[in-house]
Amino acid sequence: MTQPTHLTYSGIPTFARAPLVDPQGDWQADVGVLGVPFDIALGFRPGARFAPRALREASLRSVPPFTGLDGVTRLAGVMFADASDVILPSLEPELAHQRTTAAARAVRQRCRVPVFLGGDHSVSYPLLRAFDDVPDLHVVQLDAHLDFTDVRNDTRWSNSSPFRRACEAMPNLKHITTVGLRGLRFDPEAVAAARARGHALIPMEDVTRDLAGVLAQLPQGKNVYFSVDVDGFDPAVIPGTSSPEPDGLTYAQGMAVLAAAARQNTVVGLDVVELAPNLDPSDRSTLLMARLIMETLCEVFSAPQEENQA
Amino acid sequence: MTQPTHLTYSGIPTFARAPLVDPQGDWQADVGVLGVPFDIALGFRPGARFAPRALREASLRSVPPFTGLDGVTRLAGVMFADASDVILPSLEPELAHQRTTAAARAVRQRCRVPVFLGGDHSVSYPLLRAFDDVPDLHVVQLDAHLDFTDVRNDTRWSNSSPFRRACEAMPNLKHITTVGLRGLRFDPEAVAAARARGHALIPMEDVTRDLAGVLAQLPQGKNVYFSVDVDGFDPAVIPGTSSPEPDGLTYAQGMAVLAAAARQNTVVGLDVVELAPNLDPSDRSTLLMARLIMETLCEVFSAPQEENQA
Amino acid sequence: MTQPTHLTYSGIPTFARAPLVDPQGDWQADVGVLGVPFDIALGFRPGARFAPRALREASLRSVPPFTGLDGVTRLAGVMFADASDVILPSLEPELAHQRTTAAARAVRQRCRVPVFLGGDHSVSYPLLRAFDDVPDLHVVQLDAHLDFTDVRNDTRWSNSSPFRRACEAMPNLKHITTVGLRGLRFDPEAVAAARARGHALIPMEDVTRDLAGVLAQLPQGKNVYFSVDVDGFDPAVIPGTSSPEPDGLTYAQGMAVLAAAARQNTVVGLDVVELAPNLDPSDRSTLLMARLIMETLCEVFSAPQEENQA
Amino acid sequence: MTQPTHLTYSGIPTFARAPLVDPQGDWQADVGVLGVPFDIALGFRPGARFAPRALREASLRSVPPFTGLDGVTRLAGVMFADASDVILPSLEPELAHQRTTAAARAVRQRCRVPVFLGGDHSVSYPLLRAFDDVPDLHVVQLDAHLDFTDVRNDTRWSNSSPFRRACEAMPNLKHITTVGLRGLRFDPEAVAAARARGHALIPMEDVTRDLAGVLAQLPQGKNVYFSVDVDGFDPAVIPGTSSPEPDGLTYAQGMAVLAAAARQNTVVGLDVVELAPNLDPSDRSTLLMARLIMETLCEVFSAPQEENQA
Amino acid sequence: MTQPTHLTYSGIPTFARAPLVDPQGDWQADVGVLGVPFDIALGFRPGARFAPRALREASLRSVPPFTGLDGVTRLAGVMFADASDVILPSLEPELAHQRTTAAARAVRQRCRVPVFLGGDHSVSYPLLRAFDDVPDLHVVQLDAHLDFTDVRNDTRWSNSSPFRRACEAMPNLKHITTVGLRGLRFDPEAVAAARARGHALIPMEDVTRDLAGVLAQLPQGKNVYFSVDVDGFDPAVIPGTSSPEPDGLTYAQGMAVLAAAARQNTVVGLDVVELAPNLDPSDRSTLLMARLIMETLCEVFSAPQEENQA
Amino acid sequence: MTQPTHLTYSGIPTFARAPLVDPQGDWQADVGVLGVPFDIALGFRPGARFAPRALREASLRSVPPFTGLDGVTRLAGVMFADASDVILPSLEPELAHQRTTAAARAVRQRCRVPVFLGGDHSVSYPLLRAFDDVPDLHVVQLDAHLDFTDVRNDTRWSNSSPFRRACEAMPNLKHITTVGLRGLRFDPEAVAAARARGHALIPMEDVTRDLAGVLAQLPQGKNVYFSVDVDGFDPAVIPGTSSPEPDGLTYAQGMAVLAAAARQNTVVGLDVVELAPNLDPSDRSTLLMARLIMETLCEVFSAPQEENQA
Repeated sequence: MTQPTHLTYSGIPTFARAPLVDPQGDWQADVGVLGVPFDIALGFRPGARFAPRALREASLRSVPPFTGLDGVTRLAGVMFADASDVILPSLEPELAHQRTTAAARAVRQRCRVPVFLGGDHSVSYPLLRAFDDVPDLHVVQLDAHLDFTDVRNDTRWSNSSPFRRACEAMPNLKHITTVGLRGLRFDPEAVAAARARGHALIPMEDVTRDLAGVLAQLPQGKNVYFSVDVDGFDPAVIPGTSSPEPDGLTYAQGMAVLAAAARQNTVVGLDVVELAPNLDPSDRSTLLMARLIMETLCEVFSAPQEENQA
Repeated sequence: MTQPTHLTYSGIPTFARAPLVDPQGDWQADVGVLGVPFDIALGFRPGARFAPRALREASLRSVPPFTGLDGVTRLAGVMFADASDVILPSLEPELAHQRTTAAARAVRQRCRVPVFLGGDHSVSYPLLRAFDDVPDLHVVQLDAHLDFTDVRNDTRWSNSSPFRRACEAMPNLKHITTVGLRGLRFDPEAVAAARARGHALIPMEDVTRDLAGVLAQLPQGKNVYFSVDVDGFDPAVIPGTSSPEPDGLTYAQGMAVLAAAARQNTVVGLDVVELAPNLDPSDRSTLLMARLIMETLCEVFSAPQEENQA
Repeated sequence: MTQPTHLTYSGIPTFARAPLVDPQGDWQADVGVLGVPFDIALGFRPGARFAPRALREASLRSVPPFTGLDGVTRLAGVMFADASDVILPSLEPELAHQRTTAAARAVRQRCRVPVFLGGDHSVSYPLLRAFDDVPDLHVVQLDAHLDFTDVRNDTRWSNSSPFRRACEAMPNLKHITTVGLRGLRFDPEAVAAARARGHALIPMEDVTRDLAGVLAQLPQGKNVYFSVDVDGFDPAVIPGTSSPEPDGLTYAQGMAVLAAAARQNTVVGLDVVELAPNLDPSDRSTLLMARLIMETLCEVFSAPQEENQA
Repeated sequence: MTQPTHLTYSGIPTFARAPLVDPQGDWQADVGVLGVPFDIALGFRPGARFAPRALREASLRSVPPFTGLDGVTRLAGVMFADASDVILPSLEPELAHQRTTAAARAVRQRCRVPVFLGGDHSVSYPLLRAFDDVPDLHVVQLDAHLDFTDVRNDTRWSNSSPFRRACEAMPNLKHITTVGLRGLRFDPEAVAAARARGHALIPMEDVTRDLAGVLAQLPQGKNVYFSVDVDGFDPAVIPGTSSPEPDGLTYAQGMAVLAAAARQNTVVGLDVVELAPNLDPSDRSTLLMARLIMETLCEVFSAPQEENQA
Repeated sequence: MTQPTHLTYSGIPTFARAPLVDPQGDWQADVGVLGVPFDIALGFRPGARFAPRALREASLRSVPPFTGLDGVTRLAGVMFADASDVILPSLEPELAHQRTTAAARAVRQRCRVPVFLGGDHSVSYPLLRAFDDVPDLHVVQLDAHLDFTDVRNDTRWSNSSPFRRACEAMPNLKHITTVGLRGLRFDPEAVAAARARGHALIPMEDVTRDLAGVLAQLPQGKNVYFSVDVDGFDPAVIPGTSSPEPDGLTYAQGMAVLAAAARQNTVVGLDVVELAPNLDPSDRSTLLMARLIMETLCEVFSAPQEENQA
Repeated sequence: MTQPTHLTYSGIPTFARAPLVDPQGDWQADVGVLGVPFDIALGFRPGARFAPRALREASLRSVPPFTGLDGVTRLAGVMFADASDVILPSLEPELAHQRTTAAARAVRQRCRVPVFLGGDHSVSYPLLRAFDDVPDLHVVQLDAHLDFTDVRNDTRWSNSSPFRRACEAMPNLKHITTVGLRGLRFDPEAVAAARARGHALIPMEDVTRDLAGVLAQLPQGKNVYFSVDVDGFDPAVIPGTSSPEPDGLTYAQGMAVLAAAARQNTVVGLDVVELAPNLDPSDRSTLLMARLIMETLCEVFSAPQEENQA
């Protein structure tokens, strides 16, 4: 007989019931989780500050290991640790960035795959900075929007600019593949700048028309950071986000991209951003994104695991 | 000129404005409706207790007969009766089971097709017991989950176990076809037990890839009981459920399975379970599932109708 | 550097931040917007009265011009004006109709493309009357329902009858193409009457099976009025509507119909109706329909623009 | 041991589980319930159309008889019947009025105290017309607003005018006492007209300052009709209403007025209007107003019961 | 300068950011917190299963110590520990009771004041059993309802019966004072049984009329267990509960009772039950009840603290 | 007969249907309205960014002039102008402050009483700076909290500090009266600093116990700025706010303070802050606060109106 365990709504919600650790403490794990409840850089509907806690709660429906219908067990023996959230100030973006980078760096040093729970997309910049020593770093981004704008609404630090800032600050950030782009309006300067750097801008139409072709464009044999903006998904699938765009990724399509990229690269980190649990009373947005994290980790930990030193 | 009738939000909500009858009373109908507002056996988000009333209210948008765009009229002359809900105790699962089986048996004896409005999925066990005299009984189940687990969370009576209990109790329950299976985690013992009995475990990928192939696996010429767990559907379609799993059935796919099975078998009963109206402010979950019941009945009553005595 | 502009939630919400004009005033524009917050003619769940204001607010996320990922800029130089809402009485349908027609006529005279924000679908009748002098007028309607019923619930003026009334009153209304029809029940008399007039009744199955074939059935070289009932779309895409029907149009399919029709005809007006913002806490229904209006206008204003005098 | 009964959320929701009757049928009862799900005459936030059904559901928490903490049993032996709702047309206010008056008259003839479940306040006019033969009829109205306006928003039939219309149409309607008046704006013509007729206009301040004094102003020994506009109550107590006004009646204050009036008069009928269940997710608005009806009936049926023939 | 701390929505939500301990582990604290997420014994609207987690999250707004406007600092140096939730089975009430009593007993042995977060009111029975060795135990209960019923809805274990069961099982439970009683219906047998035992049944009218008189009736110099059913409060104050009753306690009145009782007795434990966070979108119900716990502890820990051995 | 006007939900929502003006434009009015949709300085639940628009929409229920039940007409001939919202950057608090002060100064120069619609309470600092030339400026603040903290969560610009910053920056800001203070925790340094400046810190208990005594402490014959933090009110009255505290002001109490202060001083400006419409589905929070603004203006414009030059 099995040991009694908590029902989903019961118990203290660390991610996947992992032990709670101090980011700077003495621990080692396969997966280290860090929340970044920061959403004051978005320009529309707030709520992503509530996502780290919500994702932890949702993760309790999906505590590994998992045995599939195929009988294969995944994530067995993979150790999780939950490093809680970055302790953020009110306002004071620069200080918030410093603390986020410091905490991310600490987590990264103590685990094989850090999982970051945003927050709006602006947090990807201070998170990526914690990877400034990773050779030949590639980003695979699921997103409706490019987020490569120089200045928006009089600021350089909004959720439209994280990758622009990261590319400026990090010479090792070599390439970004963005999957799911769509919408009426793009910032022409940002598009030009991204293309000038050789980034892969993959519109949603390509995913719909030829998913295999899209998968073929993903990096191979690289150190890859995943940045999952939940508005990359169709708003019928993930309604809980500030800025929905129609005709987005199905869960399966998004997962296919992540799985393919995970299998043929070394995943150095993962963030999930722009999730606004307060906009989805059914809570499926959070439940599905918690599962996406787990399913991505399944792929990461079933892939060949040599580190990539470029 | 037609007789004035109530607007959808008006009038006492019996199912499809059917006459209200006592389950044990003196009545006969083609379709008998019985609610089972029992949801204390699920382990996550309650609300299915509210589903029988909500489904009745939603049914008022779809009172037969129906003439389609094709000019064909369906369910004309089919008589409905609403036997209200099982009178359930608080707690006391065994007593709840007894009363559910007794009421279901009474309804079954008075109509050709009983329609049961759950409730969480645990109610399918006491409902099925009312069919313990049906020779060669087959179940067609739409579901993301197998619900064939022996013990979960220290109980044998949860919504993960109804079909396990039914198979144990009813030698006449010969076979179960489950369509829409998906998710990270399955209970290996349950999968093995179901496969050992020869059940058809049809994953969602099969439906997506080859619906015709799935339809070809459905029973033929049998006495069939339909058990529709609404989480078989995609949560974008039916967000109102406790345990959503991504990439599920579209309405059309679910309906295709039920229609095909209805046309080539004798449908002896139908339940709809795990609907949590409280989790869907748009109420489309309930409105669509009420329509699914009606559309399934259209298929049942347009099929050749000889009873199957095996 | 660009001029500071309001964030989406900031500023007075005229449509797309257009100047506010009096319908009867001295103005000219390419696009004139008029709201018709009237929803007492529907028979189920009210809320469409709130749609004009909600659509204006949502439009602030999508203020033209738009430069796409393809680098093409659209709606540049196209002038918008917002004529506010029709001043409607309480109750008093006939007076409401008069005022609606008068305001629509005034707007129409001052702009090239009037955009009407409903309201329930009954408003399309008084709106269409403002086009009674347009030769050879065609309607392209996205809708789950035909809305061609003579009398429903004892009235001739409900949201089931606008096109019947318009066809009766307007000899110049030659043809209606309805795309997205589905549902269990149709009014046989209405179907027969529409078919007798030669209308194109295109069921949703046709769209799913052969979108190109559907597009080929659209009018060509005509003066076309678009009537977008949001329940034409799938309720997973647009949950905010009174009467959802499963398996409807994706955003892309609906947009494909409007785009094709816009490119090969002269669009004389556009209404969006049956949007109930109160039924969708995620607000994506309103956000997507505001974008649909903009995207349709992109097509209208990139098409060859000679007026059609039949 | 007691007979098993349905839990609150179980069973077909007739009012207080009363037998369902046809208004025009062959029945007699002490209390006859009739719903009037009509809310197209209000000028702000709809939802009162959903109140009759919601009040019935809420009544299931309070099925008589009631034994209080004081050991006194009330409403024992009082027979209820539920005559369902008036079958209303869409739009067509005049027809709606006719049907409402006819149904109310039928119910009134078959029971001692009819209870009417609105609907917006406009329904009190056609309801009152069913009492046009009651000698010396008095109305006791709980309300923030006077509802005695001649014309509002271009109509004479809105929820601001029911008592004006009733006084015009019914010479026997001698007097109205309105308790709870407050707000920034009154219609001076309406105030003057009501005062000219000698109506008692009792502002909320009077209730707060001197409840006993207010009770002393209530009619005595009359035939009284109660009209309870739920916005008479404080919006903290009853948030579910279209037009909340601060600093209103507590439940106890409102009940004190109804109880005092019930004890010293003959109550000929009762309506509860302007309840919008959709605006109160806690549902306490509906639960409390269902209880208010019951508690008022307790007073009516414990008072000396000779009919008043004036 | 102070140490940075988490914002309310940040960090892992143990109660008041206390260390997380195992109930059976090696720890000592002044206050030990234990959740009991069990709500299948109530007969109306579920949700109390979500209360332990919600109360912990809400407690993060009120982490002691507290310096008041009066300059007095309270709860300084008082040590908290969070023992997480009882690990409960699905269904299986008896097993749930056993585990609840065992965990409560373990927590009680390790701290001076255990705080229990329900759960519906049925949990007070297994919680109280953990105090079966406390001499001359008194209960002070805030509640609209008596909860002393023998059998309700065919069960002896519902949320109507916890104190009946406790009195049967625990000879040391000498007396119960219930404050806030109100409502149309009481169980006469339960009232008689409670009165026969000499319990103090204090109706809400007494609180309104003479709070000082009520306080004078509270026990003095006893070992007291507080059981706070949130429906004792007015539903305008605490809307998030299954069974609201109008005209209940203000926060100040409820706090006055608890404060007075805390100051003149030895508080041996405290539970807060029947809180349904899902029914209050403003979340004030949870925020206020978390504060109530803290404010009660302020009183407990500022009172003279000798233990009472009776 | 009166001119038709828009129903509440109709028309473009400027405040009280006032003309829309540019803050820096050529206009004069009695009342000038300016929104400040800035809420990134609060530390808990966002939403105040939505308040300016929501308050404008709610103001449409209360367009002056107003004739009361007493026959007195108020605000007749008082001219309103709506200067829209401050155009704010994303993030960039200093720039936001500059623009807010500049716009407030511009509005102030063009009207007698500016009305500012926040935003969180941090906006009161840049708003007050626009009054740095008003001699002997007094603030009357309704608030549960003091908001006089030097540094909170590592920032000096949060919604806990506006009055500290204003007092530092503006020698003319002589005195603050704060009414409604309550809560478990105060910042001792802030309390001491406020007391050292001679501010009046009036706890809620004083209001409850002796409202007249509180009114007697208000300034007289001064230039007064009103700052209404909606959490000064009881959360049952105004649930839509980030940080509710129990036992707060009734609407009448808050209005009594504002009315008394308005009658005996010169009101130079008014802000309403911390309103989170998204947390109150009944929308009464916004409706009541819009009315509070109007009712306060009624007092201001019925008071003797000589300007105070101190």
